[in-house]
Amino acid sequence: MKRGPARNFVIPGFKFAGISAGIKKSGNRDLALIYSEGPSVTAGLFTTNRIKAAPVKLAIKNITSGKAQAIIINSGNANACTGEKGMKAAREIITGTAHELGISPELVYSSSTGIIGRPFPAETIKEALPALIRKLSPLSLKHAASAIMTTDTFAKISFKQVEIAGKKGTIAGIAKGAGMICPNMATMLCFIVTDIAINPQALDAALREAANRSFNMLSVDNDMSTNDTIMIMANGLLNNPLITKRSPDYANFKSALNELTYDLARMIAEDGEGATKLIEVIVEGARSESDAGRIALSVANSMLVKTAVYGRDPNWGRIMAAIGYAGADVNENRIDISINKVKLVSKGLGTKREKAARTALLNKNIAIRIDLGTGKENARALTCDLTEGYIKINAHYGT
Amino acid sequence: MKRGPARNFVIPGFKFAGISAGIKKSGNRDLALIYSEGPSVTAGLFTTNRIKAAPVKLAIKNITSGKAQAIIINSGNANACTGEKGMKAAREIITGTAHELGISPELVYSSSTGIIGRPFPAETIKEALPALIRKLSPLSLKHAASAIMTTDTFAKISFKQVEIAGKKGTIAGIAKGAGMICPNMATMLCFIVTDIAINPQALDAALREAANRSFNMLSVDNDMSTNDTIMIMANGLLNNPLITKRSPDYANFKSALNELTYDLARMIAEDGEGATKLIEVIVEGARSESDAGRIALSVANSMLVKTAVYGRDPNWGRIMAAIGYAGADVNENRIDISINKVKLVSKGLGTKREKAARTALLNKNIAIRIDLGTGKENARALTCDLTEGYIKINAHYGT
Repeated sequence: MKRGPARNFVIPGFKFAGISAGIKKSGNRDLALIYSEGPSVTAGLFTTNRIKAAPVKLAIKNITSGKAQAIIINSGNANACTGEKGMKAAREIITGTAHELGISPELVYSSSTGIIGRPFPAETIKEALPALIRKLSPLSLKHAASAIMTTDTFAKISFKQVEIAGKKGTIAGIAKGAGMICPNMATMLCFIVTDIAINPQALDAALREAANRSFNMLSVDNDMSTNDTIMIMANGLLNNPLITKRSPDYANFKSALNELTYDLARMIAEDGEGATKLIEVIVEGARSESDAGRIALSVANSMLVKTAVYGRDPNWGRIMAAIGYAGADVNENRIDISINKVKLVSKGLGTKREKAARTALLNKNIAIRIDLGTGKENARALTCDLTEGYIKINAHYGT
Repeated sequence: MKRGPARNFVIPGFKFAGISAGIKKSGNRDLALIYSEGPSVTAGLFTTNRIKAAPVKLAIKNITSGKAQAIIINSGNANACTGEKGMKAAREIITGTAHELGISPELVYSSSTGIIGRPFPAETIKEALPALIRKLSPLSLKHAASAIMTTDTFAKISFKQVEIAGKKGTIAGIAKGAGMICPNMATMLCFIVTDIAINPQALDAALREAANRSFNMLSVDNDMSTNDTIMIMANGLLNNPLITKRSPDYANFKSALNELTYDLARMIAEDGEGATKLIEVIVEGARSESDAGRIALSVANSMLVKTAVYGRDPNWGRIMAAIGYAGADVNENRIDISINKVKLVSKGLGTKREKAARTALLNKNIAIRIDLGTGKENARALTCDLTEGYIKINAHYGT
């Protein structure tokens, strides 16, 4: 599988660290810090789950300020369903980090991922803070990316450069995914930094659009976590004229951010628990973008489609069934379906090209293309195949 | 696993047959007939999938008459996504069956289950009609039950007696399930017969209520098929005073029908593809029945919960997460969760009884009981664990 190389790029004004604090029994990196040398404009999106982890509850309140300077993230423990003790622990992590960094606690966010309902190891983390901060470096984004991993098999980093008012701006992001991935951000963490100057309203709107077209079109299973978080910090060190929603550069910024989040979403799907194949579902010819999106996600969510891709079985009837129950209006007699350019269904009927499709399904990257033939709108969704590996990983994760 | 024994009961006025017509390569039974000696009052519920199999399209039109005398069902081919040819074939099966039985085609329904998008073997079925009809017998419900199976591992039959106006009425039903099971009836077929006299309006309302409390609370995966059908025929031979919605006996009839459909739904969950455990999710203390139902289904649908049960992993955090994303209002600090009477969560916090829960998870029948602590309404949902077996069955089913 194609993986983003951990290049040694620098985003002016940002430093990163990722260390092993001893939360994970494995001794792998489990504590990350993202630090901006000055306060940054920030925006964030959080889980819609009614049961939220302690740090998420705090972040939702704090984000209204639109400002941030540091984000501390641990893996190995979700700090969810931990009651008042968990809330207290989350507050202590924030104040402890602020104290060590010598900044205001209002500028510090914490984020956690891992198992739910276990006592949160606040002491372990607090003891590790000085070591974590000593490791801060402009070149350590890759260490932060690996410290936020849970069952991920590779660190997810994406990096984009974009021309803003004649200058080269930088956007970089890290993410973790693997299991519990579902539309509307399931145990998905994503942290993005940029040196581009942009106002809070434009940053928030751009982040929402980017999430809707990437992470919210991503499905590994149907489970949504208590901890999902996506945050962006913009420190403005590029010194470009401040981008607002009306700036000519806003479209460029959004397009680079969309590319970056789609990149990260693609890596998450590729690294779905037990996955052997990345599946992209492209729906075209829909009456509306929302119809197209609903159908793309319905197909991407179908366990029967995902197991069929795993078994290299060009069982297009399962794709048709998932199109039909998406809740969007469709005309069966106008639907075309292809798998990696092999047309399996033409105007609602099978073309008997199963043999060619079976060969196409040897690829690691599978594109299921659906043309509804009723309009001009389109959407795409990302997922992976469903294999015995998913079962093995999830039958024994918590123990 | 507990299976309904194929008892040799008789439902006055009904005959059944199930034979091998040669549709399935295996040579197993694949063609069933349910026959009422006279026209019966009938009601039916069909898939809400926008893409419907040919026989479902015909049945939806025909059912408005409220009358039926025969249902012919084949397995091995769904007659879905088969275009005009499929519609013509479905009509031929109905007229052929009506002709051989010497009854009006308006009184005959057909139903199909199996793979989607393959040419429908109408000739094979038509040739088998005389043999099928010769086999009709009051004692052959079990043969009909086995002829409608696809990946089911056992035939599903339920039988209830109920006192109606001092007489003993009979209700019997058969069902098939296995894969593609999802709320709102996914490749699920169920056919029920009774000798109780009831008017069409009461029969229809009772069937809807029974389906909502059983098949619509059942989840094996999230896929909904193009072919789901549940039909009931009531021939009135008990000669009880005709039941209407206002009859005192209506409640008795509904209660027996609810028990019967819940029995069949339970068997379908037990026989979920690759299942090793039956899971019943019971939600109590909800503000409304719809909240309770939404949460019960959310937990029953969670792949993470289902894999955890398979792995005997008392990972209650996954149950909490699924409660939280169900979309119902909950108060985390009031939630209790038990698995087979071992209380794992009390007022939102873990009780550290994982060891006892792990022992409880050795059972084949798992009850996940959730008390929301905010009201008096309840609901229950049925599912099964998710195992490597599901993947194996579905990665290679169509080929």
